[in-house]
Amino acid sequence: MATAVIFGAGVMGSATSFPLCDNGHSVRLVGTHLDGEIISRVKARRYHPDLRKNLPSGVEAFELTELERALDGADFILSGVNSYGVRWSAQTLAKVLQKPLPIIAITKGLEADANGDLLSLTTVYERALAEAGGPACSVSAIGGPCIAGELAARRHSCVVFASDNRKRSLWFADIFRTSYYHIWPSAEVYPLEIAVALKNAYTLPVGIACGLLDRPESEDSAGACMHNPAAAVFGQGVNEIKYLVKSSGYNDSFASSLPGAGDYYVTCAGGRNMRLGRLLGSGKTMAEARKEMEGITMESLSIISSMAAALPRLKERGIIDMDRLPLLNYLIRTVEEGVAEPLPFNKFFPEIHF
Amino acid sequence: MATAVIFGAGVMGSATSFPLCDNGHSVRLVGTHLDGEIISRVKARRYHPDLRKNLPSGVEAFELTELERALDGADFILSGVNSYGVRWSAQTLAKVLQKPLPIIAITKGLEADANGDLLSLTTVYERALAEAGGPACSVSAIGGPCIAGELAARRHSCVVFASDNRKRSLWFADIFRTSYYHIWPSAEVYPLEIAVALKNAYTLPVGIACGLLDRPESEDSAGACMHNPAAAVFGQGVNEIKYLVKSSGYNDSFASSLPGAGDYYVTCAGGRNMRLGRLLGSGKTMAEARKEMEGITMESLSIISSMAAALPRLKERGIIDMDRLPLLNYLIRTVEEGVAEPLPFNKFFPEIHF
Repeated sequence: MATAVIFGAGVMGSATSFPLCDNGHSVRLVGTHLDGEIISRVKARRYHPDLRKNLPSGVEAFELTELERALDGADFILSGVNSYGVRWSAQTLAKVLQKPLPIIAITKGLEADANGDLLSLTTVYERALAEAGGPACSVSAIGGPCIAGELAARRHSCVVFASDNRKRSLWFADIFRTSYYHIWPSAEVYPLEIAVALKNAYTLPVGIACGLLDRPESEDSAGACMHNPAAAVFGQGVNEIKYLVKSSGYNDSFASSLPGAGDYYVTCAGGRNMRLGRLLGSGKTMAEARKEMEGITMESLSIISSMAAALPRLKERGIIDMDRLPLLNYLIRTVEEGVAEPLPFNKFFPEIHF
Repeated sequence: MATAVIFGAGVMGSATSFPLCDNGHSVRLVGTHLDGEIISRVKARRYHPDLRKNLPSGVEAFELTELERALDGADFILSGVNSYGVRWSAQTLAKVLQKPLPIIAITKGLEADANGDLLSLTTVYERALAEAGGPACSVSAIGGPCIAGELAARRHSCVVFASDNRKRSLWFADIFRTSYYHIWPSAEVYPLEIAVALKNAYTLPVGIACGLLDRPESEDSAGACMHNPAAAVFGQGVNEIKYLVKSSGYNDSFASSLPGAGDYYVTCAGGRNMRLGRLLGSGKTMAEARKEMEGITMESLSIISSMAAALPRLKERGIIDMDRLPLLNYLIRTVEEGVAEPLPFNKFFPEIHF
């Protein structure tokens, strides 16, 4: 049996304690400076206020100040912080980690280097650890359609565990796999990370399509729900995710499979990105929409910014044909101008040649 | 300006009168023997009871007995019947058609020949017309995520018009295209027809996943909506549609684009296939579920039957690897046994090799 440290006590990190404890592993849940309330309630009676249920009895909670003690004798770390916390998390770990430990991250995000090449957050994490003088840990990734509350309810959830080191992803999969948490080990870290990050960005225009009905001037005599426009955006979104993964030189099969189409589907079923999109679609400016959603992390916007920085470089280098990315261009414009213009339907599906 | 005969006054056929009339074309809407009530109400005051709105003023309604008069001087026929009506429709037209007219069909369905090769309904239609002694008409197809009520509300709708004859699909597209009805002409009839037919079948297990929560014994302490299981099924569904199109020798790009993933997405947002799936998922037998949905055409079931007949032939011929189709096998078993067994999550995503 292994001893896991979950670093970051948000819903997704904490939910992974269910399969871990069901398999008999010990879990040490360490809160960040943002998780004070969560940790004190888990310490008091195991209740996680955001998951709205008790964590398994195999979970022991730790304050951030107790991180070093939590790491003592641990076999691996599950990083539960979001993309904004990756560097902080690496620096914090670098100070107290005595030896390399395998890390597996649930973080979704995307950065681009100066050449426009897309970086997965696992790479960002590994580099940040090294720069902060920490031991050389390899960072693996979890991706796929997995809403935390459903994993915590032990609903069937299918995910990919990816690591550059094949043995490591098998090792992690064996530790986490249960009758309801189905895991596909994979060595394809980049296509996984790119697909799952991009689907957050591409959920925004699906929300915009749905939000058009909320405009004051729209009438809904047809009982219409904007399914037709949303479905066209979804189809083009899958297309562009596929194109971006492939043009980056990776296998694009994920894009139309579990971590692409499947994850995109579940993200469009609800959540923060759809909500922001709907507000923009209804005619609100980005500033107004962000104000309504104050305090909610919007990783989709930083992914769009990363892509906005990367695209001109990728175009210069002949890697990207901008005509294949009408939706991404639309998203970049929407973020820059702060309002959602009409969706560019006629530019969609350039691959349907005639 | 063209004169169109819409044959079959169901919601989808009738909804196409909106773009046609907005473009100034004349529409003659001819009811089948099942459409008596619709036609009499359209004749009385243009009101379509199933679309729950008035049809455009350019629409003239005809009883089935007036078919010959409606065809007089017509430029083309839009076939609005469902897959069960295709042969009847061809035989009926064969009796009265004086000369070949271009036909474009909204019908979704799939048949298989004795070798297991999948036939699109356009081919079935053309053959049935010829067998009934009718003139040699070419049949084109419309496919893509387009709910009738939304087209009738002039919401943005994106579809593919496919014809073996490239000029013909361009001609049709020019006639129908409006600012809200976006059309991609294509020569790829088969991949279009196969993708749009299969997505109906693959919606059933997404419904089954969602329906599991409706079982008497399930508790929903997590506010969980079965998004995780449904998303995994959706991802595997896109995979299998892609695999079936590709292994039939066709371009599989539609499968992860508008008529595949996009249309699949919208079909999962509601409708009869999801409803049947939910009932099965909740633990009802097929017989009980069908009884609750009496009188509702379930094209998904005949598509599954066609696939059940075709698969052993395709396997024998080395065209299909059954391990790539765990969901289709599950669907065939579900139809044969009349109950939904647990979904085979662990057999999904065999393409994620390790």
